[in-house]
Amino acid sequence: MSHFLSGVGDALVAGSIDVIDLTQPLSEETTPIKLPEPLVNTPGFSRRELSHYDERGPQWAWNAIEVGEHVGTHLDAPIHWYTGRDGDDLASIPAQRLVGPAVVLDKTREAAADPDYLVTRDDLRRLEAEHGPLPKGGWLLLRTGWDARAGDEAAYLNIDENGSHTPGFDAEAARWLGHESPLVGVGVETVGTDAGNAARLEPPFPLHHFLAETGKLGVTQLANLALLPVTGSLLVVAPMKIVGGTGSPTRVLALVAGDAR
Amino acid sequence: MSHFLSGVGDALVAGSIDVIDLTQPLSEETTPIKLPEPLVNTPGFSRRELSHYDERGPQWAWNAIEVGEHVGTHLDAPIHWYTGRDGDDLASIPAQRLVGPAVVLDKTREAAADPDYLVTRDDLRRLEAEHGPLPKGGWLLLRTGWDARAGDEAAYLNIDENGSHTPGFDAEAARWLGHESPLVGVGVETVGTDAGNAARLEPPFPLHHFLAETGKLGVTQLANLALLPVTGSLLVVAPMKIVGGTGSPTRVLALVAGDAR
Repeated sequence: MSHFLSGVGDALVAGSIDVIDLTQPLSEETTPIKLPEPLVNTPGFSRRELSHYDERGPQWAWNAIEVGEHVGTHLDAPIHWYTGRDGDDLASIPAQRLVGPAVVLDKTREAAADPDYLVTRDDLRRLEAEHGPLPKGGWLLLRTGWDARAGDEAAYLNIDENGSHTPGFDAEAARWLGHESPLVGVGVETVGTDAGNAARLEPPFPLHHFLAETGKLGVTQLANLALLPVTGSLLVVAPMKIVGGTGSPTRVLALVAGDAR
Repeated sequence: MSHFLSGVGDALVAGSIDVIDLTQPLSEETTPIKLPEPLVNTPGFSRRELSHYDERGPQWAWNAIEVGEHVGTHLDAPIHWYTGRDGDDLASIPAQRLVGPAVVLDKTREAAADPDYLVTRDDLRRLEAEHGPLPKGGWLLLRTGWDARAGDEAAYLNIDENGSHTPGFDAEAARWLGHESPLVGVGVETVGTDAGNAARLEPPFPLHHFLAETGKLGVTQLANLALLPVTGSLLVVAPMKIVGGTGSPTRVLALVAGDAR
């Protein structure tokens, strides 16, 4: 098998395999999720300077940061949700689950027409009919165009008097992704893995519910899914290795062959 | 080139390519570097609970974390050092530089005999004579056995009245790695990329100096280098994407073919 890895290494250097960064930039401008009272909300990102090439550290600059585990492009570990409370935390997720093939489901048009759009089991059946079975050990990435809104809190969270209007999965699709599909995880462009109004579904927040219950992983706030082919990319999901961590800001990279785009 | 990526995907699922986690667990127990006064030191890792399946969030557990950018297994961006102050921060490093072939230089025996051991230009010449030229776009990983000390602050930092005694690179080797080698980065098992007593070298902290000066990357506090072949693994270095970040805790993974170990 080593020839595949040498091939990838050579192709990366030659530029015939690209590394696509699916991560949103993380800063004081990053919009955290906003939960209604009396639920506790998360702090966003902040930093304090330790030195800046000055008497506190003449040759170096560095900072300390504070951030919520679920801010920016981030991973939800199974223990984030009560259905996975006996499951993996960030440090116990087997590394093998952090690298795998990705399949992109494009619902940009549907989400533009209806921001509350919920992916159905039939949508997943159609995807498999057209592009083959979802891959064992792989990831489903839901493209909705929501990544373009990430710099604009009002547009990204899309909250009105009837709640938050952002796309996601219905309960039947979520149950199938957790319990039946061969995937290890699901990624989305929105602030959380579930739809904005998923508290009203049964069970509430069904994708959180079923992914955690089955030990699977969720990734949110992805960018640049438009640059991926439907199939054929290799995804790397790289959270911090926090012992007992329920999630963390996460670098997400995709390896894509030039001839697949 | 897509057949290489499909091959890797299939081989990952079949288990004939392993994902080796080179990351130390991150927690309140993680030992930060300790600088002498009057230099400012970094906080370690801490967290505060936001909810734990309770009235603050009935179905979820999550935390906020505080951590220094240079705590635990972490990446040094070029702007961490004054010689790279006009270079890349964490968010501007091209993603292509975060994935590449790795070569392991094993100096475990030398570091056990002399904790102040400095890798020389001749050590690098011998490595290339035996295993071929260091790869373009690749990483050199220095194995010293220091990863086994990471849970024990006294042994890891190894500080006495004459400073900190941990292995690293001499100035000539560091200058060559930055200015001459085709690598994009260097990784080590110790608390920093330079040797414990590298403030006394000329220039001080030569690996920091020359990597930052040439826009290259450093990674510290790696684990499990003993599980890698000398050549043939594919390294993924995945820092947070902090805008203006000088470094961050970083997940580091290596893809290794079963037939290469």
